[in-house]
Amino acid sequence: MRPNDMPPEEFRRFSTQVIDWVEDYLDEMSDLPVFPQVKPGDVVDALPDAAPVHGEPMEDILDDFKEIIVPALNHWNHPRFNAYFSVSASKPGILAEILASAINTNGMLWKSCPGHVELEQVVMSWLRQWLGLPEAFFGEILDTASTSTLQAIAAARVSAAPETRLKGAPRDLIVYTSEQAHSSVEKGAMSLGMGLEQVRKIAADAAFRMIPAKLAKAIQHDRAAGLRPCCIVSTVGTTAVTAIDPVAEIQAIAESEGLWHHVDAAYGGAAAILPEMRWMLQGAERADSLVFNPHKWLFTPIDCSAFFCRRPGALREAFSLVPPYLRTEKDSRAVNYMDYGIALGRRFRALKLWFVMRYFGREGVSTIIRRHNLWARQLAGLISEDSRFELSAPVTLSLVCLRYKGTDEDNQRIVDRVNESGTAFLGGSVINGRYILRIAIGNIATTHDDVLRVWDAVRKAV
Amino acid sequence: MRPNDMPPEEFRRFSTQVIDWVEDYLDEMSDLPVFPQVKPGDVVDALPDAAPVHGEPMEDILDDFKEIIVPALNHWNHPRFNAYFSVSASKPGILAEILASAINTNGMLWKSCPGHVELEQVVMSWLRQWLGLPEAFFGEILDTASTSTLQAIAAARVSAAPETRLKGAPRDLIVYTSEQAHSSVEKGAMSLGMGLEQVRKIAADAAFRMIPAKLAKAIQHDRAAGLRPCCIVSTVGTTAVTAIDPVAEIQAIAESEGLWHHVDAAYGGAAAILPEMRWMLQGAERADSLVFNPHKWLFTPIDCSAFFCRRPGALREAFSLVPPYLRTEKDSRAVNYMDYGIALGRRFRALKLWFVMRYFGREGVSTIIRRHNLWARQLAGLISEDSRFELSAPVTLSLVCLRYKGTDEDNQRIVDRVNESGTAFLGGSVINGRYILRIAIGNIATTHDDVLRVWDAVRKAV
Repeated sequence: MRPNDMPPEEFRRFSTQVIDWVEDYLDEMSDLPVFPQVKPGDVVDALPDAAPVHGEPMEDILDDFKEIIVPALNHWNHPRFNAYFSVSASKPGILAEILASAINTNGMLWKSCPGHVELEQVVMSWLRQWLGLPEAFFGEILDTASTSTLQAIAAARVSAAPETRLKGAPRDLIVYTSEQAHSSVEKGAMSLGMGLEQVRKIAADAAFRMIPAKLAKAIQHDRAAGLRPCCIVSTVGTTAVTAIDPVAEIQAIAESEGLWHHVDAAYGGAAAILPEMRWMLQGAERADSLVFNPHKWLFTPIDCSAFFCRRPGALREAFSLVPPYLRTEKDSRAVNYMDYGIALGRRFRALKLWFVMRYFGREGVSTIIRRHNLWARQLAGLISEDSRFELSAPVTLSLVCLRYKGTDEDNQRIVDRVNESGTAFLGGSVINGRYILRIAIGNIATTHDDVLRVWDAVRKAV
Repeated sequence: MRPNDMPPEEFRRFSTQVIDWVEDYLDEMSDLPVFPQVKPGDVVDALPDAAPVHGEPMEDILDDFKEIIVPALNHWNHPRFNAYFSVSASKPGILAEILASAINTNGMLWKSCPGHVELEQVVMSWLRQWLGLPEAFFGEILDTASTSTLQAIAAARVSAAPETRLKGAPRDLIVYTSEQAHSSVEKGAMSLGMGLEQVRKIAADAAFRMIPAKLAKAIQHDRAAGLRPCCIVSTVGTTAVTAIDPVAEIQAIAESEGLWHHVDAAYGGAAAILPEMRWMLQGAERADSLVFNPHKWLFTPIDCSAFFCRRPGALREAFSLVPPYLRTEKDSRAVNYMDYGIALGRRFRALKLWFVMRYFGREGVSTIIRRHNLWARQLAGLISEDSRFELSAPVTLSLVCLRYKGTDEDNQRIVDRVNESGTAFLGGSVINGRYILRIAIGNIATTHDDVLRVWDAVRKAV
């Protein structure tokens, strides 16, 4: 019996209700409208202005969750949530989150929780093998790719300019990325105190891939101007259209120029698990760091960003500051993760990744990912056959970018109509100055029929 | 029926097993040794070198969890986990985490999930009221206090030096904090590209509180040297001994000098909910930002760091970079949290805080916190009566710092013995150059008897 907390029989009753709700929610989700019928402020207006003075019955809390919160959710775990990148909380991942929340460990130091820290080492080693990266890559799990990329640039910076630790960020260090790269590269650099003027956005080719020759030229130009090139961030699966930068060519430039190369495979990394897609990461095995988010396309609940770094000493140089109350005995097998990043507190994220990797196995996840890619190509075929539409970018993975041959406003209205219909939730983007539609396939429960229904909803919206 | 995922009947079976395990774990935890009998590498050695090719039965995964992981856990949710700061995952918080993991939302934009974003606004408003902060404070939930403090310093920086966005971090901006402050202040500044030489550690008084006169003098000294004072970080409940900096006096200096004042109440904030402890945050209502971690002493599972900022425009200036594919319609009631920090992806952390605040109510949490403070004072009384020990710092909240009147090695050996006994898990620190023992009280299930057992274990270890 645990004093002060909810009594055991009450916990059993409500956890049964919660689990039943989860099971029903997941199994019947396909019938729910993906995007809710709400206006800004609806939920705020429906809830009290202040927290209760006295405790409330769990019945009431769960009722409000079902009646006020759920109807205002955009259902990210829905098979026809096709905006941004499609994500999934699979049931093995959910089971792991229940356990992780109850044991409530903090894996900042080996000593702070040996089982947590060592399982993180193990699953990151397993994942490293799935991605074809060599053993030299140190792995840690962070919250998001934004944090992972920021940490990579910080490590690159302190490698190029060790004086940063004491003196602050030099204003002459330059970071290179594609004009198609995720905004997290700019945000990371800006947060780190590198100005936006220290970030070069290299032109991309017609398939939206960074052009290595332009990269090399920009580096030479900066060197000639007395600046210090420091870091290149390439992308395997860009956010707008999932373009795949030529990693090996970029790595060759990084090597000949002595620059840090960070690979942002936050989305695309999942597909690199497939033997036929391994070419995407060719060259990454010699890169300095890589991020891949299992919480995107590897069926693991949010948040779980896998960050790999071949030069962990640079991470320690960028982030370690061990105060006396956190000192523990030295042991080469006892990893103290707090020395490798910003956050001190660290949830037990390894547990859900372990459950997902084991429950589905490499073949299991590969089969699902392979199908998503296939359906994306098939959808692209259907789009090509409809003369009212055009593809806006090559389909490289499971994202399809298209546009109705009309105005930007027409296309925007199509997105709005599909979203208002509740059939699917789509997003848009701007490519070559035109508004386009993005259909991201990637939820574990998505079927071929779901893809066809989305395409149908788009055509109906015209 | 949800394709590809675990079948419903299997999920029902295993979720029942998982919930039963959680209930038994929580209710019988007090009988478990807090710290495990493991050596570095034990867990790594017990697990396969590679992930399985084919999926494995959930039975086997759960068995390995129980047989390999659990015996290697340091039980943070244990009533006699007294190291660092004691934390709690209460059962209402665990129920919320089950729901949050299943709905798997990302609250980066209002449009990305209205119910998630608006509930976060509501609970942060509720919590703001509990802390006595005015409505002008914008609230957001981040992962850890390290991130919150980093974001505060970033906002302070861009306010003092708007050129930072484009040109990078100036090397003449200075951050002030106590020599007793948490290492996250230095790590935050260093990560942001402010060198460690740009951080001043102000001397503390005999009670380990920052000395305002020394702060004022350091600011004058830096101004005279042509440097730009930028930000002060005060602490309400320091990590080593829970000293409480004189927030109002520091705020007066910040105002007269035109500096940003960030209050680190990561631990102490919980006690500020008690009317009799509100004095601790006097002056904070005029500060620029404040962090308080509900995942520490407010019975909310890890991670949940509440970050309040009275100048949200400065946060946007520090972090906003909106790319086209994330643009949504403008509405003053639709908050886009991604513009206020580093991470783009954001778990639904508000749900667990909502469940905890409602289930226990303000009186419920206050009663538990008040008792922890009382027991800490009572323990200090017992220590004073034992001539072999001495108190190392005033007891201000629920942490007791003491030392055996012997060598540092003697004290270190006492900590090791207590931890090896499994009765409790204690930590140490270094204060005034001497190694001390820290007994942190703060788990929801801790009883007065637990506190006496810990004290007994310490005396036996002598």
